[in-house]
Amino acid sequence: MSSTIISDFNSATTVRLLFAPKLRCHIICSLRLPSLRSISPNRSLQSDRKNFLAFAPAPLRSLSNFITPVALSMGDSVATVIDGKVVAKQIREEISVEISRMKEQIGTAPGLAVILVGARKDSQTYVRNKKKACEAVGITSFEINLPEDCTEEQVIKHIDTFNSDPSVHGILIQLPLPRHLNEEKILNAVTIEKDVDGFHPLNIGRLMMQGRKPLFVPCTPKGCMELLHRHKVQIKGKRAVVIGRSNIVGMPVALLLQEENATVSIVHSHTKNPEEITRQADIVISAAGVANLVRGNWIKSGAVVIDVGINPVDDSENARGYKLVGDVCYEEVCKKASAITPVPGGVGPMTIAMLLSNTLLSAKRFHKLSN
Amino acid sequence: MSSTIISDFNSATTVRLLFAPKLRCHIICSLRLPSLRSISPNRSLQSDRKNFLAFAPAPLRSLSNFITPVALSMGDSVATVIDGKVVAKQIREEISVEISRMKEQIGTAPGLAVILVGARKDSQTYVRNKKKACEAVGITSFEINLPEDCTEEQVIKHIDTFNSDPSVHGILIQLPLPRHLNEEKILNAVTIEKDVDGFHPLNIGRLMMQGRKPLFVPCTPKGCMELLHRHKVQIKGKRAVVIGRSNIVGMPVALLLQEENATVSIVHSHTKNPEEITRQADIVISAAGVANLVRGNWIKSGAVVIDVGINPVDDSENARGYKLVGDVCYEEVCKKASAITPVPGGVGPMTIAMLLSNTLLSAKRFHKLSN
Repeated sequence: MSSTIISDFNSATTVRLLFAPKLRCHIICSLRLPSLRSISPNRSLQSDRKNFLAFAPAPLRSLSNFITPVALSMGDSVATVIDGKVVAKQIREEISVEISRMKEQIGTAPGLAVILVGARKDSQTYVRNKKKACEAVGITSFEINLPEDCTEEQVIKHIDTFNSDPSVHGILIQLPLPRHLNEEKILNAVTIEKDVDGFHPLNIGRLMMQGRKPLFVPCTPKGCMELLHRHKVQIKGKRAVVIGRSNIVGMPVALLLQEENATVSIVHSHTKNPEEITRQADIVISAAGVANLVRGNWIKSGAVVIDVGINPVDDSENARGYKLVGDVCYEEVCKKASAITPVPGGVGPMTIAMLLSNTLLSAKRFHKLSN
Repeated sequence: MSSTIISDFNSATTVRLLFAPKLRCHIICSLRLPSLRSISPNRSLQSDRKNFLAFAPAPLRSLSNFITPVALSMGDSVATVIDGKVVAKQIREEISVEISRMKEQIGTAPGLAVILVGARKDSQTYVRNKKKACEAVGITSFEINLPEDCTEEQVIKHIDTFNSDPSVHGILIQLPLPRHLNEEKILNAVTIEKDVDGFHPLNIGRLMMQGRKPLFVPCTPKGCMELLHRHKVQIKGKRAVVIGRSNIVGMPVALLLQEENATVSIVHSHTKNPEEITRQADIVISAAGVANLVRGNWIKSGAVVIDVGINPVDDSENARGYKLVGDVCYEEVCKKASAITPVPGGVGPMTIAMLLSNTLLSAKRFHKLSN
């Protein structure tokens, strides 16, 4: 049976059910259920139908007469959705509580400084979002906007000021920098104690070495691990495949998985038969930056899939003319995996939550508060 | 046919031939042939026999009447031996030539300082060997012997003196240090410009990051890569398995393989079915420190095997009561692999050659000479 997918991934979702309706199509729908849980094939079909009718968004509810729930184990099962929005919200709340306590204890809050050079629209949006996220949890944010044509010395002067400012515990340089600036030199100017991005080579070196600990774990890799932990995914002794070997995601996440005793393989653009290697994995983390790279036949049945990719693809139905998709072909993989992160709403929200977490960690370290 | 192995691996070897003799046993023998080459099954059997009679060590030659050469392709083929002694000698000669030239050009030689704390017999032997190797290629060696009970401050004072001495280009702290000394703190006191061991976390971090270069590549991993390069082993696009994830061998060698676009998996003590993963590899580098861990059935036919392990095992026939063996069960694996390093005489001699190479590199960098 050929099938059409009608999806409604934009609403806040906690669980997705697969129905095979009379309309000869599949509907993967988003339900706001009271608690996060996966649907087992043994659950009463009638109760699924009732849930659908009770919780489905209105436009889908109108289709209810055409829908006959079928056993979820028939042919396809559906992966648990690892909802980054929900987990990130929970973490932000935890951070917020800790910061309130810190303010009570020592009368001061953590501070995060962002330096933005030039006027790129996307960079401005990122900086604005970071600022909003800081304010929401009680982190004081500092912002310096420098003109596109500023010199390296000017940027470094501001970094130095923040380096020695005791109310600043984290310093971010918004990337990309204009071409005339030496990115490596500028990033290395941030003192390692305030490198909340965790990208300093000394941090990366410590991350790699047994018996050494980095001051900060880079945000996106830390977010991926946090999703695995909070979903109680076993890592020790498991086969993991990381797709992509970037400094900021692929390599550090591979090290983090290995540190927890997974057996890790890194797949990249020169890998022959990446699907063959990926198919051996119990845990797949894709950070390749290639839309729909990871297809259903790349995935071992029951694997856990974390999709770090955020790739714009043309979409005439979208007002912006494009939509964002992951590296993973969601529709195919959600039928093979036991759990999967959506895009958007998976790893994305975690990155900023981990930035807040690193800033808090830095402030606690500075003020010698226990973790 | 059940077979007995009579081997003579201690003599300097360039190639090993497999004969099936009338004695109903196999002999893997070592021949000193004029040049390094592998034996193809198509070579004249009679010429193999002649070579055997002409070049075999005397005790084996006495068996010649019982030997009938057979085609090497019958049943088993034998791996090319990657002879670390030969390659290391060649590298030391190249270094020697460069140092002579440097002395002519600028009137000064590279210098390597070694700090030895305590009186461990094995450490004293290592230090003596390093000193001899330095002298042989024209590197000036400096040595400080400190008593077992010296303080951290005393060790660091000597490191500082070497750090600022322009005639010293590399500083080694002989490990292990006595227990009362903080190893990490002492190693970190060596300036990164003279860290010829390449173990500083900043170096390791740079090794890991795309677009960054470490000042020095750690010696043993560098030696493994040099063996692959000089034996023209293709790395790009190949599957590689590294067994062991130590800071000093496993992890850095995995990064070096990946930097040359191999697809790398790291196998360790928590890996389930390590033989299954290893069997997929075109290149296997074992640095597990477990005698005879890697058996014949772990190896894909035609793989290249680098054995970093040096493990003492009881041997009543040896005057010392033990002999040194690798991680790899040589007798089994040499019939599956296309090339293999022996132990001893494989990676071992390369490590010290790479230390000399790093010291030369450091001196050239200090004197701003081109590489």
